[in-house]
Formats: sequence, structure tokens, C-alpha cells
Amino acid sequence: MGKCINHPDRETNYMCMKHNKYMCEECLKCPDPKIHCKFRPSCPVWFMDKKGGKDIDNKPAKQDKKKFNVIFQTENKKAVVEKGATLLDAARAADVPLNASCNGKGVCGTCKLVVLSGKTKSKPTPLLNDKEKEKNYVIACQTTVESDVTVKIPEEVQEKKLQIAGVGKKVTAKLKSLVKEITPMLINIPLKLEPPSLEDSISDLDRLNRGLDKSGRDTSRMSIGMKVMRELAGTMRNDNWNVTASVVKKKCSSEVLKVIPGNSKINSLGIAIDVGTTSIVVYLVDMENGNILAATSGHNRQAACGDDVINRIVCAEKDGIKKLSAMVLSTINGLINEAIHSAKVNRNQIDNAVISGNTTMTHLLLGIEPRNIRREPYIPSVSAFPIIKAEDIGLKINPISAVFIMPGPASYVGGDIVSGLLYTGLHREEALTLFIDIGTNGEIVLGNKDWLMTASCSAGPAFEGGGVRWGMRAEEGAIEKISLDSKTFDPLFAVVGDVLPRGICGSGMIDLISEMLQTGIIQPNGKINMDSSHPRYLHNGDEKAYIIAFANETSVEQDIIFTETDIDNIIRSKGAIFAGFIVLLNQVEMDFSMVERVIITGGFGQYLNIDKAITIGLLPDIERSKFKYMGNSSIAGAYMALLSEEYRIEATQISNNMTYIDFSSNNEFMDEFTSALFLPHTNMEVFPSVKIK
Amino acid sequence: MGKCINHPDRETNYMCMKHNKYMCEECLKCPDPKIHCKFRPSCPVWFMDKKGGKDIDNKPAKQDKKKFNVIFQTENKKAVVEKGATLLDAARAADVPLNASCNGKGVCGTCKLVVLSGKTKSKPTPLLNDKEKEKNYVIACQTTVESDVTVKIPEEVQEKKLQIAGVGKKVTAKLKSLVKEITPMLINIPLKLEPPSLEDSISDLDRLNRGLDKSGRDTSRMSIGMKVMRELAGTMRNDNWNVTASVVKKKCSSEVLKVIPGNSKINSLGIAIDVGTTSIVVYLVDMENGNILAATSGHNRQAACGDDVINRIVCAEKDGIKKLSAMVLSTINGLINEAIHSAKVNRNQIDNAVISGNTTMTHLLLGIEPRNIRREPYIPSVSAFPIIKAEDIGLKINPISAVFIMPGPASYVGGDIVSGLLYTGLHREEALTLFIDIGTNGEIVLGNKDWLMTASCSAGPAFEGGGVRWGMRAEEGAIEKISLDSKTFDPLFAVVGDVLPRGICGSGMIDLISEMLQTGIIQPNGKINMDSSHPRYLHNGDEKAYIIAFANETSVEQDIIFTETDIDNIIRSKGAIFAGFIVLLNQVEMDFSMVERVIITGGFGQYLNIDKAITIGLLPDIERSKFKYMGNSSIAGAYMALLSEEYRIEATQISNNMTYIDFSSNNEFMDEFTSALFLPHTNMEVFPSVKIK
Repeated sequence: MGKCINHPDRETNYMCMKHNKYMCEECLKCPDPKIHCKFRPSCPVWFMDKKGGKDIDNKPAKQDKKKFNVIFQTENKKAVVEKGATLLDAARAADVPLNASCNGKGVCGTCKLVVLSGKTKSKPTPLLNDKEKEKNYVIACQTTVESDVTVKIPEEVQEKKLQIAGVGKKVTAKLKSLVKEITPMLINIPLKLEPPSLEDSISDLDRLNRGLDKSGRDTSRMSIGMKVMRELAGTMRNDNWNVTASVVKKKCSSEVLKVIPGNSKINSLGIAIDVGTTSIVVYLVDMENGNILAATSGHNRQAACGDDVINRIVCAEKDGIKKLSAMVLSTINGLINEAIHSAKVNRNQIDNAVISGNTTMTHLLLGIEPRNIRREPYIPSVSAFPIIKAEDIGLKINPISAVFIMPGPASYVGGDIVSGLLYTGLHREEALTLFIDIGTNGEIVLGNKDWLMTASCSAGPAFEGGGVRWGMRAEEGAIEKISLDSKTFDPLFAVVGDVLPRGICGSGMIDLISEMLQTGIIQPNGKINMDSSHPRYLHNGDEKAYIIAFANETSVEQDIIFTETDIDNIIRSKGAIFAGFIVLLNQVEMDFSMVERVIITGGFGQYLNIDKAITIGLLPDIERSKFKYMGNSSIAGAYMALLSEEYRIEATQISNNMTYIDFSSNNEFMDEFTSALFLPHTNMEVFPSVKIK
Repeated sequence: MGKCINHPDRETNYMCMKHNKYMCEECLKCPDPKIHCKFRPSCPVWFMDKKGGKDIDNKPAKQDKKKFNVIFQTENKKAVVEKGATLLDAARAADVPLNASCNGKGVCGTCKLVVLSGKTKSKPTPLLNDKEKEKNYVIACQTTVESDVTVKIPEEVQEKKLQIAGVGKKVTAKLKSLVKEITPMLINIPLKLEPPSLEDSISDLDRLNRGLDKSGRDTSRMSIGMKVMRELAGTMRNDNWNVTASVVKKKCSSEVLKVIPGNSKINSLGIAIDVGTTSIVVYLVDMENGNILAATSGHNRQAACGDDVINRIVCAEKDGIKKLSAMVLSTINGLINEAIHSAKVNRNQIDNAVISGNTTMTHLLLGIEPRNIRREPYIPSVSAFPIIKAEDIGLKINPISAVFIMPGPASYVGGDIVSGLLYTGLHREEALTLFIDIGTNGEIVLGNKDWLMTASCSAGPAFEGGGVRWGMRAEEGAIEKISLDSKTFDPLFAVVGDVLPRGICGSGMIDLISEMLQTGIIQPNGKINMDSSHPRYLHNGDEKAYIIAFANETSVEQDIIFTETDIDNIIRSKGAIFAGFIVLLNQVEMDFSMVERVIITGGFGQYLNIDKAITIGLLPDIERSKFKYMGNSSIAGAYMALLSEEYRIEATQISNNMTYIDFSSNNEFMDEFTSALFLPHTNMEVFPSVKIK
């Protein structure tokens, strides 16, 4: 319990985990965002603190040592849990990929399960509809195990293969064309050494260094580890003074990490990894020619600890960083395995790696304390990393593999953004460019070759599906493009994978809101204004909703609907991003007319409609040709840094050169955010080309 | 079995472990050294290869699993061994410091024990006299355990505290005066950092680096390990942004090894270690002011595996490097413990260390493969080392302590010689200097600030007591100074520690031979020429001997004698060294008259008599004022390198600048060696001032 920040006389149990501030129910419901959230307008992490303490622990006290089996049918996995443990606990114990956006608080409803047999006890929840209850759906985090049970993850929640952008021939060719010279961190140097004699009796190590010198390496700044020294004598004599030395080049020095007998060519491979909060992408790359041999992707296992970075940090504070680290490593190592099998290569060939991720993701992956990222003044522990050995962080590739971590300038602008800039090249060009990564944080960058400013808008995960009843990422079954008949209000949509829909992704939501606005289904304030007799109108609990697809048109056999809350969440997200644009421009006394290019990246589908994004006020109303959607730029930048030392140096320079503006206590941002909470904006003059009925 | 190098028709089982060559018994006994040892005149490692293979294994085959207790009374230690194990095996298992010069071959007689109770079985040996046999003396390596037994190490063999040269006030002052500025490898930097704010939100690591920059450190080339990064956030906030960073400076970069909360002053300590084949010396040094807080010394536990480096390598090949490494580490760590207790300091304060030792010693200590040191063309595995962490090599000091290993140019000229040069400073001066370290190898250096030549004479350990019946190091009970009455032949001697004698050390031997020569007791060929009725004359087995001290004048209650074999061994040692001088001078077309200074180091007592050393032909017959005895220069150089980066760089330069001349296949050296096998020399013109009766 704590005192409301606006009404000090009121005790409340609603607290923001990020800001450690309390707010009463009235304030939470207040439409004036300045009051609503003094600290960060669209901060997504307000939640009810049931215990009056800091974190919520859903585990009941140990009353009964009795243990039960929980079987996950589809995954064929089992957990043994004590009586009273939740099904979410069981899923985590069994390492079953069950998402839990709110990290077990019982407010998001993503951790749905179907109980097939056995006895469970569920708390009452508004998150399941009657149809779901009939089918024995439960919310895993709100349901305790009371006997041996068998459950399954419902079809519509099961993880599907992510679409991997950017590995078509064309994209690969583009990526390869960006790398002029391949300069790995770790290289394997084959050497044919002169055997020693009484006249040439230098030490084995000096002989090795002489060989390296002759091969063009500067050994004056080269070091060598104890293990290599200990075994050097045998190694060098094993194959008649033919050896291969693995040398890693660091900031100013280099190190011989391994020497093996023989000097036949080693086909060295690399991996580029984009560690997203939600999904992870791995490219397996031939270090000889830059070819992408395999690309795999999957959902970050940390999703079991919540959708956003704040929940992940909370989870790390509660359960230990190691747990979160193990979760993301298990995802990454699984994807590496897939890539290895698909390309039919040996794990030990992979001796170079680059990891690109936001600041929280890199902290958790490396096991670095993340707690101060979510506490004012929001300090990351490390923003620029030395080159690390794979074995030191648990990557299952060659243990000596060199790992470069993309540096990031701030707690909420990380290596993934630096990686994106590297790919877009805006830091090398004259043109004033606006870069937007639309994900949970909504990072934006404004600048050109002379200067770079950056900020994070805390936009929330709405465009990635978070906080939207049927929202999802651009996976199979996601509606990614939609238009409405202006008369019948019937939709026409395109679904990823050309299957029956099971949800709607970011580009689909933009289309939908824009069309609803244009057809008059919603008003500029986001409220639904539809005839209650219309077949697509639904009164869902307290609020109105539009039915996108009827149950029989879907793969989940339920109506896919779009509620006023969904719309409100999207308005808040787009408002935060748009406010960010304006404040960043104001900082340098510029306006949209001076922006020569707008680059958009993020997990949209391939059909992001710029016009419609402008219509809803997400993007500024400027010349359409200035916009460019560039897909997953984080993995593209990681690929570049993997192959080129020049790009690795450039990444560090980008990170160092970025000026970070903190919006969390910026009054101007608050004002602009409020103004942007309309469709497209309270000030229509900012959107001259947008015409609404 | 192998063929004799001189008589290919003869099979023999005498083999030199160093050269892998065989020689028949006739050749071994032949007085002509050119035939005697074609490969290295005074090579000490010819031995009988009983199994016809390479190494001798004294352990009998396991016939009986019965186990017995062997109790070492004085040390209060116990070993449990199988029936048939030798007492030497038991001593090694119990970690009892029993020397075994020949590494268990049964030829040296150093591993004497007294059996107090129980049943043992000994092979016949000529190495014990009747008195010893009466007292139940046995040779441990030739005696197997047949029941529970209790033994003790006889008084005369027990290790005594070594004299430590160089820690008197005067010597300390001299050492301190050599160090102008103290520049440790690892320093602890106390920092008072600014707490972060929204306006100053750089990462914890960047904040640390900024603090280090402000304190005058260059952080552009600084790296940091995973463990430090992982804990950084907590560490920095633990004491209100006051921290202390431990930074090690390497060749071209530096690394933050540890960060701890708080910024109160740390009193940093260092250790300098001289790792000799026989004895080890440790200085504990205050890194603030260079004061020597404690000096300890002891016998290298590896002595259980033989006296010389060759036997140590053989032992490492048989039993594993780890065993030899553990032996020397146990000695060093024991001496460190003594020093810590004596100075009443904390082990973790010791965060800088320098190790100086010959090439074999450093290889074995660090666990680096040494086998090629003893095989033509005699290649060390590593001659220049990176800075190592204490925990990586098992030194029981602060685990992150920086350890500098003195580099050495060749297999038989190591870091101890480089350390010695550093101390003498001959590489900084105009004067042409001859530097001699008289130990097992007899390393010599000739040169000045412009050039340095070096060689190893394989002189053998005679001057350190090896191969001499009553020879010993300059420890308590050693006769270190002696003169003979020219009429009665009665001796007048000085004993280390002013106690009854129990042996004779190097300086004593030089005195004795010189006196015996001057009084006519021996002829220039080293043969005893004494009236057989003289009370000090003894016919010992096949050979003649002079009685230095009668049993009742000694602490061991036995006659201390000096045999023709002893004299022969010393002649061979001094001959090898003198031949080395000449060959090295010839290489640069110089002679003794051009030598401006002769520096002698090694384990002599404090009474090395230069005149007498010239009389026996060990030192050249030049102006006496040119000679200087400098004691243990290896530990002195280690002290200097511990305190000063300049000296560490200088040591590496010395090692790199030394030109190594290999004598093992040098015909000129063979000839000179033969000529030097007389007292003082076959060519008396070389010793004009020496007059012999």
C-alpha cells in the first residue's frame, strides 16, 4: 500500500513498478493524462500490488508438500509441482513456451490453457468469455493444481514460426553489398613453421609469433593465455610444425586463444543474433563470403516472465538474473541448433558472433545486474562491452568464439537501435533523418552525419499486439492488412500465411483504425459510434467493440473483436511516438518540413500502409516518398558488424555520438502527448492532408 | 638398451637422459673426456637404464595389495603405501622433504633414512658405510616397505633454515636506492564518483571509467571482465558511489580486475620470488615504500625428484607436470605463509608478484610442457610471458594479483640470469663485464651496454654440494672457509651458524682444494699424494680421501671426508666454467685482459675467496680488484622488477638482446674443457700469478 501521488490522503494498492509510485483508482481512470500518469504518459506497468509490498508473488505459502504431475499434452512435457502451485509455475518448470505478458499478475490473459483432465482451482477472472469457460479454458497464473492434471496450450495461443524478414536473395545481396571487406574478430591463421635447430633455438612461443609476424599479424601487442602456453610444445610438434592459430583482435591488443596442430583451411562461420524482448532472430553466416547459410527465429523464452522489459527486470529481481539469462540462452541456443542442422555445419566452426538487443536484453543475457534500468535515473550497468568469449556467457558455439555486443547509449535506447542506424547509414549522410523503431519502447532518433539525438517514448507494446485483446505479432494467422466497406462496414483482409485469422498485427491495426475513422465507425477520440443493431457491433462487458471476424471465419472459433480499450491503447502508443517526434525536433528548433527522410523499423508485417499510419496520427503528414520501411534493421546491423571491423568501430561511434533526451520528466513531452491523444491529433492543422468524415 | 656412441658393436644400458645417447662402461670410465662425453663434457645425467627403455621406474609391479603405514617420526607425518613400495615413494606420498638428488636411481645416496621399527628390504648399496649400517641407515629409494614401519630423517640430512642473503639494513637500503619510482603492475585506485542523475545518466561502467580518467588513468585501452561487469551495479551503489578499482597494466592495454565498495586506502604488498632448482627465496615487500617486511627461504620440494633440472623434467614426463608444479607451489606457498605470519599482514594485500627462475623452473611452476628443454636442439616452450593472474597458477595470494615472470633467452639461460643482470646493471654500463652464476648449469654472460653474449657450461652442481660426498649448500653446519697448516695438514675452518660441521659448501671446497694444492696434498691432476700413515689420510673403497673433520668434531658423528671423486667432480665443474669464459671471449675475439669486471653470483657462503678460486683455476688470473661477489642476484632483480615498470621493460630487453651460444656441440669448448681439467690449468701461462709447490 502507498499514498496516491495526486491525493496524498488516499491509500492505494496500484503501483507502477517502473517508477515506484502509487496512484488511486480514480486517478487511474481519469482521462486527463497529465494527472493520469505524471511520470511517463504511456507507462504500461501500472498494476495492482495485492500484498502491499513491492512484487507480487503468486505462489501460495507451502502448506502441503503433496506433489502432482502436470502434463503438457502438445509439447509432451511434464512438471512435478507441489499442491497449490499455479499452472504458470508448472509451465515454467517444464520449460513450456507459455507467454505471460503481465508476468503472472492475472491482468493480461495471455497465459490461457485448456484443462483436459484433473482437478484445478481458478480464481474468478473477467479474462475468459463464456465460450472459453465452456471449453475448460483457464488463466494459468490464476489457477492452482489440485491433482495430477493434463493441459494443453490452445491453438490460438501456440507459438507459430515467425516470419523472418530479410533472407531472400535480394535482401542477402543488399546486405552483402554493404560489406566491402570481411574483417572478423577472430581469425584462424594457418602457419607452416620452420623446425628449430641449434642455430635457431628460439622458444616455441617466439617461433609461433615469428610465424604470425610473417603472415602479416602484429604480434607486439599480442597476448596468450595460460592454457595455450601449457600445451604449446605438444601442439607445435604434433603435425611437423604445421599449426593453426586462432587469434582474436580486441580494442588495442590481440590474443592467441587457441593453437591446434595442422594447417588445413578452416571454414569459419559466424552468427548474428537479434535478441528482441519478444522474438529472437539468428543468422548463420559464412565468414568467407558473407553468405547467409541459415536464418532461424523464435520467441524469447523470457516471455514467461512478462511482455515488456520492466516485467523481465522485476522477474530477475525476484527469481535471480541467472534464471532470465538461462531462458534467453535456451532460446538462442535452440535457434543456433536449428541453424546448424539446417546448414549441416559443425558447431565449432562458429567462431565469431554479434549480439544486438535492447539494453535490458543484453544485461539479462550477459547476467549483468539490470535493476537500475527501471529506477530513476534509469542507469544501465554497462553500455559498451569488451569482446567476450562465447564460453563466458553460455553461447553453445565454439567456446573461444569472439562475441561482440552492440553498444547502446542509454537504458531505453540500446544496441538494437545502434544496429539499426548502422544498417540505415543515416549517420553517414547529409539528409536530416527521423528513425523510428516501433516496439515496446518506441525509440526514435533524429539526426544526420553531424549529430544524433535519441529518445524513448515508452509507447507500449500495442503495435506488437500487447494490450490489444486479439493483438499479435506478424506471425501466421495475423491480419496484416485490412480495408472496410464504407457502406456495410464489412472488412476485407490479408492474413500472414494465407490461413484463417487468429489475431491482428501492427500493420493490420493501423489499417483498421484508419478505416474505422474514415468510415465513421469511430470518432476522433477513439470512441465507437456504431448502430447497436449492426451485426458487427458488440457490447463487450463495459465497452463497445467492432467484430473483425466472426467465429466461423477464424481458426480459433471465436469472434475476433476490436474494443475501445484496444483503440485507446493504440492511440496512447501512437500519441507517445508522435509527441516524441515533436519534442525531439523542438530540441533542435526544427520542424517536420525539414525532415528529409523517415525510416520505420519494427515488427510490422510487410504491408505497413504509410498513408493510413499518417491518418491515425502515428506518422507526420509529410511527403509520402520520404518514408521508408526497413523491416528488422537490428539483425541487419548485427550482420554487418559480424563481418566488418569498420562497422564494429562505427557502431561504437554511433553509440557514443548519440545525445539521449529523457522524456520521463519532460513537461513539454507531457503536453505534446496529451495533444496527440486524438485521431489524428487535437490540432488538425498538423495533418493538413488527412480528411475525416 | 642401445649402442655405445664410441663402440657401435657394443650394447649398453648406460644412457644420458639429456642427450638420449648410450655409452658403454669402458667409455664411461675412460679418463679422456673427449671420448668420455662427446656431447657435453660435464653432463651430469649419464645413468644406468635398467629396463632398456627410457626412464627408470623403481616401483615394483603390483603383486600384493596389502597396505602399510610408514610413519616419519620427526615430521609427524604418515603415508599409507602398498607392500613393496619404496621408502622414497612413502616420503613423497607423505610430503616429507626428503631430498633425492638422482631421482630414485640409487646412485647418489642423499635419500638416507633411519629405520626405527618395522620390516624393510634393502638392495645392497655401496652408499652406506659400516657405521651407518650399524645405526639402521637405509637408502630410501632402494628400500621397500614390508610391514608398518617408523623412520626418521637423520640429523645430517635434515633441512636447515637457509641463510638469506640480502635483507640486512644495508642491502635493503641498496635495493631501495635502485628504484627511483614505484610503478606496480596492479594498482588499487580509490574513487569518489558523482552519483547519477537524469541529466548525467551514463552507464555504471562509463561512470567508473570517467572516474578513472579523472584520476589520470588512460581508459581508452582498458578492458573489464564479465564477473566485474556483472556485479558492478551493486558494487558502485554499496558505499554511496565510493569505490576502489584494481587495475592491472599490461603490455599495451590495461584491465579492471576488480571493483570493491569503499575508497579507503589499501596498503598494497608485493612478493618477489627466486625459484631455484635447489632453494627458493621469498621477499615480502611494501609496495608503498619498497621496504622488505619479511624474507623467507626453503628447499624446493621438487628435490624429491632429483637435484638437477634434467631429472626434474624426466620426473615430469613420468609422473606428469602437475605433480612437479604442485611440489614447487607447495614450497612457495609455504614460504609466503611464513612471510605473512612474520609480517602480520593479510594474504589478500599481496597483489603484485615477480617470479625469477631458470627456464625449467618457470616451465614446471606454470605447468608448461618442459620436455623439449632436455632434447636437442633444447627448445623452451615459452621464454617471454604475459602478465598472469595469481589464481591461474595457484599462488596463494590475492587471486587477482598480477604476476610477472622474468623472461629468459634460452633453455639453459633463464629468467634468473636476466634478473641477475638487471641487478648488476652491466647492460647499462660501458665496462666489459663477465657475469658468472655458479649453480648447476654455470651460466655465463659477457658484454656491456652495447651487446650481451651468454652460454651455459653444464658445470654440474658440485659447488652447490651435488656429487660431492659431504657437499652441501651454505646452510647451518656447512664449512664455508678453510685453511690447512702447511706442516701438519690440520685444517682451521669456519662453519655457517658457528656450530659443529655437518658438511662443506662451495666456498669451503674452493678453499680446501686450493690449500690441498698449495700444501702438496694433491697434485695438479687432482690425485691425492699423501703419506698413507697420515692420520688424515683415508683409503675409502677404491679411492683415496682426506679427512676434513673427525667424527667427534662433527654434528653427524662421522668423519667428514673429501675424496678424489669429489675433487674430480669439482675440477670438471670449474673446468667447464673456465672453458666457457674462453670460448665466449674468443667468439668476440677478446681475452681476459680486456675484461674490466667479473661479477660472481651463486649459492656460495659469504666467504668466497677470490685468490683461492683463481688458484684452482675457476676464475681467471686477472687483477683481484676486478672481482665482485654479489650473492643472490636473482632475488635482487626480482625485487627491482616488482617495484618498477621500467625494470620490467628492461628485463624483457635484456632477454631479447642476449645472444645465446650453444656449447653442447661446440668443438672448441670440448678442447678448452680438456685443457682446464688440471689445477689450475694444463697451460700454466694462463695463470702467471699462481705458484704451486
